[in-house]
Amino acid sequence: MSRILGIDPGLHITGWGVIDYDGFHLKYVAHGIIVSPPSDDISSRLSNIFNGLSNIVEKYSPHEASIEEVFVNKNPISSLKLGMARGTAICCVGVLGLKVSEYTPNKVKKTVVGVGHATKDQISIMVQKLLNCGSVKLDAADAIAVAICHAHHMKTFYAVTK
Amino acid sequence: MSRILGIDPGLHITGWGVIDYDGFHLKYVAHGIIVSPPSDDISSRLSNIFNGLSNIVEKYSPHEASIEEVFVNKNPISSLKLGMARGTAICCVGVLGLKVSEYTPNKVKKTVVGVGHATKDQISIMVQKLLNCGSVKLDAADAIAVAICHAHHMKTFYAVTK
Repeated sequence: MSRILGIDPGLHITGWGVIDYDGFHLKYVAHGIIVSPPSDDISSRLSNIFNGLSNIVEKYSPHEASIEEVFVNKNPISSLKLGMARGTAICCVGVLGLKVSEYTPNKVKKTVVGVGHATKDQISIMVQKLLNCGSVKLDAADAIAVAICHAHHMKTFYAVTK
Repeated sequence: MSRILGIDPGLHITGWGVIDYDGFHLKYVAHGIIVSPPSDDISSRLSNIFNGLSNIVEKYSPHEASIEEVFVNKNPISSLKLGMARGTAICCVGVLGLKVSEYTPNKVKKTVVGVGHATKDQISIMVQKLLNCGSVKLDAADAIAVAICHAHHMKTFYAVTK
């Protein structure tokens, strides 16, 4: 059984979701968001993301992490901010010894919803159906989706290597 | 006496420099670079920056950190990469409890060299003169310069508040 932590990093809101995958079935474990208020200085906001994710790793002991390859914003300032949140998230799980896999947003949406241009609502609904869990916080739906995408990729990997 | 860690983060090379400042004099302590090879995966590269800076903080026990406000690249992908290295550096010193101050590249150059558009070589030479130290690794000169800039800012702050 593999426990996967999916992360959707953002300077303001970082979504996360944890699922279990045994090679056949997906099982919901937990999800949530880490909020870093814009009123805080940048150091506090990034430390908040780092400490928040550290606590989640400590609490749920995932074996691997999964994160979306980034949608590069046309605005370099937005890209820089997103990069800082993303760098913090990746280095956090890396420092804690978790392997990190990356998937393009299109691959995540195709895997979870079936089409590459699904809306946030569609992703949230499909995540709930696939995991047979209650309502999912919209900001965490993408994080759970990228965890499901990684589970799906592992399945393909197993199928090919068996 | 304040011990200041200056950081010039980059995904490939992160420069760092440590100086002491007693309100009147600057004293060189140490400097160096953290290299994260492009052949490594992104998680290893960012973990390397985080662990490298953690070791420096543990070894030299600086009281504060100082970093350049970023030069936003026109290329969003470059901005994203720089953001990831920068986010990792800021969250590292933040998590370790250091206050982080930011200065624009122009302010750093004006403080250290006297002009806002100084070259890397000019910065390196001035850093050596100001600190009366031996040759400085070019990639670490900006890091030491931003530490000197912070010391200068503290001096101004003390002068105003006294």
